[in-house]
Amino acid sequence: MTIEEQVLLKVKPTHEERELITEIVAKLFQKVNTAAKEFNIPEVEPKLVGSAARGTWISGTHDLDIFLSFPEDKSYDELEEYGLMIAREVAKDAEHVEERYAEHPYLNMQYLGFDVDVVPCFEVDCSSNIKSAVDRTPFHNEFVKERISGREDEVLLLKQFMKGTGVYGSELRTQGFSGYLTELLILNYGSFIEVINNACKWRPGTTIDLMSHGTVKHNEPLIVVDPTDPKRNVAAALSINRFAEFIDSCLSYTEEASMKYFFPDAQKPLDDTEVEEMINKRKSSFVAIVFPAPDIVDDILYPQLHKMENGIRGLLKEYEFSVLNSGTWAGENAVVLVELMSSELPNVKKHQGPPVWVGSHAIAFKSKYRESDDVFSFYVENGHYVADIKRKYPDAKELIENRIHTCALGKQLAMSMEQEFTILVDMEICSIKDDDFRIFLKNWSNIL
Amino acid sequence: MTIEEQVLLKVKPTHEERELITEIVAKLFQKVNTAAKEFNIPEVEPKLVGSAARGTWISGTHDLDIFLSFPEDKSYDELEEYGLMIAREVAKDAEHVEERYAEHPYLNMQYLGFDVDVVPCFEVDCSSNIKSAVDRTPFHNEFVKERISGREDEVLLLKQFMKGTGVYGSELRTQGFSGYLTELLILNYGSFIEVINNACKWRPGTTIDLMSHGTVKHNEPLIVVDPTDPKRNVAAALSINRFAEFIDSCLSYTEEASMKYFFPDAQKPLDDTEVEEMINKRKSSFVAIVFPAPDIVDDILYPQLHKMENGIRGLLKEYEFSVLNSGTWAGENAVVLVELMSSELPNVKKHQGPPVWVGSHAIAFKSKYRESDDVFSFYVENGHYVADIKRKYPDAKELIENRIHTCALGKQLAMSMEQEFTILVDMEICSIKDDDFRIFLKNWSNIL
Repeated sequence: MTIEEQVLLKVKPTHEERELITEIVAKLFQKVNTAAKEFNIPEVEPKLVGSAARGTWISGTHDLDIFLSFPEDKSYDELEEYGLMIAREVAKDAEHVEERYAEHPYLNMQYLGFDVDVVPCFEVDCSSNIKSAVDRTPFHNEFVKERISGREDEVLLLKQFMKGTGVYGSELRTQGFSGYLTELLILNYGSFIEVINNACKWRPGTTIDLMSHGTVKHNEPLIVVDPTDPKRNVAAALSINRFAEFIDSCLSYTEEASMKYFFPDAQKPLDDTEVEEMINKRKSSFVAIVFPAPDIVDDILYPQLHKMENGIRGLLKEYEFSVLNSGTWAGENAVVLVELMSSELPNVKKHQGPPVWVGSHAIAFKSKYRESDDVFSFYVENGHYVADIKRKYPDAKELIENRIHTCALGKQLAMSMEQEFTILVDMEICSIKDDDFRIFLKNWSNIL
Repeated sequence: MTIEEQVLLKVKPTHEERELITEIVAKLFQKVNTAAKEFNIPEVEPKLVGSAARGTWISGTHDLDIFLSFPEDKSYDELEEYGLMIAREVAKDAEHVEERYAEHPYLNMQYLGFDVDVVPCFEVDCSSNIKSAVDRTPFHNEFVKERISGREDEVLLLKQFMKGTGVYGSELRTQGFSGYLTELLILNYGSFIEVINNACKWRPGTTIDLMSHGTVKHNEPLIVVDPTDPKRNVAAALSINRFAEFIDSCLSYTEEASMKYFFPDAQKPLDDTEVEEMINKRKSSFVAIVFPAPDIVDDILYPQLHKMENGIRGLLKEYEFSVLNSGTWAGENAVVLVELMSSELPNVKKHQGPPVWVGSHAIAFKSKYRESDDVFSFYVENGHYVADIKRKYPDAKELIENRIHTCALGKQLAMSMEQEFTILVDMEICSIKDDDFRIFLKNWSNIL
């Protein structure tokens, strides 16, 4: 049996799974129709979209996307009001219900073992005339459904390959490939293995345009023009690192295919001894900024964490610390972890002033520094005045403690940081016991 | 009494001193003439040049430059042979004689308390037609002698100001102002105080051309066109630092004149406790490369020391050490002293490879590093492969010990280094007890 056949054995939904989904969807549709009639808006039509609708879901993932399609002449307010009314009626028997927000509010519910989103949208005539971002989804759904038949297995293989290699998911935490994007890649190249082979030759700027109708220049690493909207890049969320990592995985897979790309071994968290070993081997300095993770969705949390990571890197560089690596992690607490050449700098800091001959500016510099108590020496170098002064922050921990407030921070992170934060240095990071954090630390000893 | 009058009391030669010089010079001239006749070359004429000839010597400095002027039709070989023959005859009664070399050999002798150079040269018709570098001196001598009368005191003040502020001397050790240059500055600006006032407004590129006959573009910080040679910059040897330091001293002097510019307090060498204090205050790392100073003149030694200093700075930077300051010193031993942010770096070194998508070069990089034992982690960053590898030289001392031979070194220094060298770190530099070295260390706590 080939590797791909082995993978399909694990990820292809069984006949029973398919029948169960059909049955559940029928039940949900009936509930929508009943509620719509009850509220006197029979024009509202339920639509199944997403991988369940296209037969491209990975066996065992029980996600359903039910869209409530409203006529275009309804107002945004009506859409929100009636949409949520119908959704709540549908969710009456659910085990758990939660109102969530994208551009508009929608309902998420747990129902007979399924994770169901019920999302109100407008029925528009074409994808470039949408009134709300979610209105595009039914067009994507139609486009794929009409063409994917017979190639569902290829989509499943590609999705599982991307999951296994860590590049699947277009949300802001991962910045990888969306389900729709994998389907378009299969439609474009024909099969899983052809996507892999072709991706080996991708470069930043590679463009795929199934309908040959693209109209806009995009700057993202990969451009896949939306077949339902010539202006849109379906791969806009893909970061340069996920792009490069996917190419790297494809190169390795073509050299030697293996199940491990689809189903990597489970990672074992580092224990304290292993953390100590890692730090001692590298002999660099680790500084972790730790604070309670704010209760916000990942798509808001992760961009704020990345902004904070960049802010802290910038702060450290401004004060002459050399940053080697950094990363962010979030569980109950959130962590920005920075690896430095050293968390301690000498007391002395070279402060270059203006050239001696520029007049008042030079005279002012000299009279300021030569009389300061914090000047070790004052001299001329390459024609410039230079003061060797006492460094304000020779210690990275102290710098961050005192200057973190000068970093631009996202709203919720800033609020959380104002409450409380701790800075851990080197082995002190072992006070974070969370298994997932200890797996995150493996980035510092992972080999691609 | 003004400061300037006080200075002149100390530096102006007395009547007795002048008479002594006249007497000594007459004796020497007579010896030259007698010897020339004896060797049957009566055309050779003795000339007194330099500050003694112009009345611009600092009281107490007993230097005499006697040139032996040969007719232009003599060959280089004749100049050398007869020149040295006459000089040796003149030096018969000297207390000490030494043959020295510039472009041609000459004699240096100690005679009745004077340091006398006897230098053979050609008598040429104008300064731009010289056959040997020393032939220019008689022209300089004539030019100044004809014009300086009445301003000798101004020259003395400027020379002493430059000595006191450390910028006097055009030899390669100092790279400052020559005697001829100070005389031209006085001729140009009229007086000591006018040189000081005008130098406050100097900038790199400032040009002084007494004869308005300059023909060549020069790139040095100060351009003083030689009145006897339109192509030559008399200030060519002046470094940007001596230039800037002189401007700085002039600025300070015009703000508040003081004897200390002419006669600074004698420097007290740092004792071990003070060296320790200096290092502890700065908390940087000091690394000294120490070796026996080769027995060569300063004009050869110092350029080689500076070349070595630059080579070592380059080596350290190449291996990611941050150099703060450096300097060279020579006594019995020679020292290149480097101050680093830290003499120790972490074991880990970030090694960036090519972008993932460049093909064979990327594949080669990956297969080289992912399988090496000295790789801590291998990952993708900004689309590039990056290997966090084991640093070859985490210790500056070890780096220099092992790689100093890759620095381009001057001939005599390289030979000396091959024999023996020691590397001292931090407080170990206290094993160098030399007073002058301990004064050199004061650069690290001097305030301009």
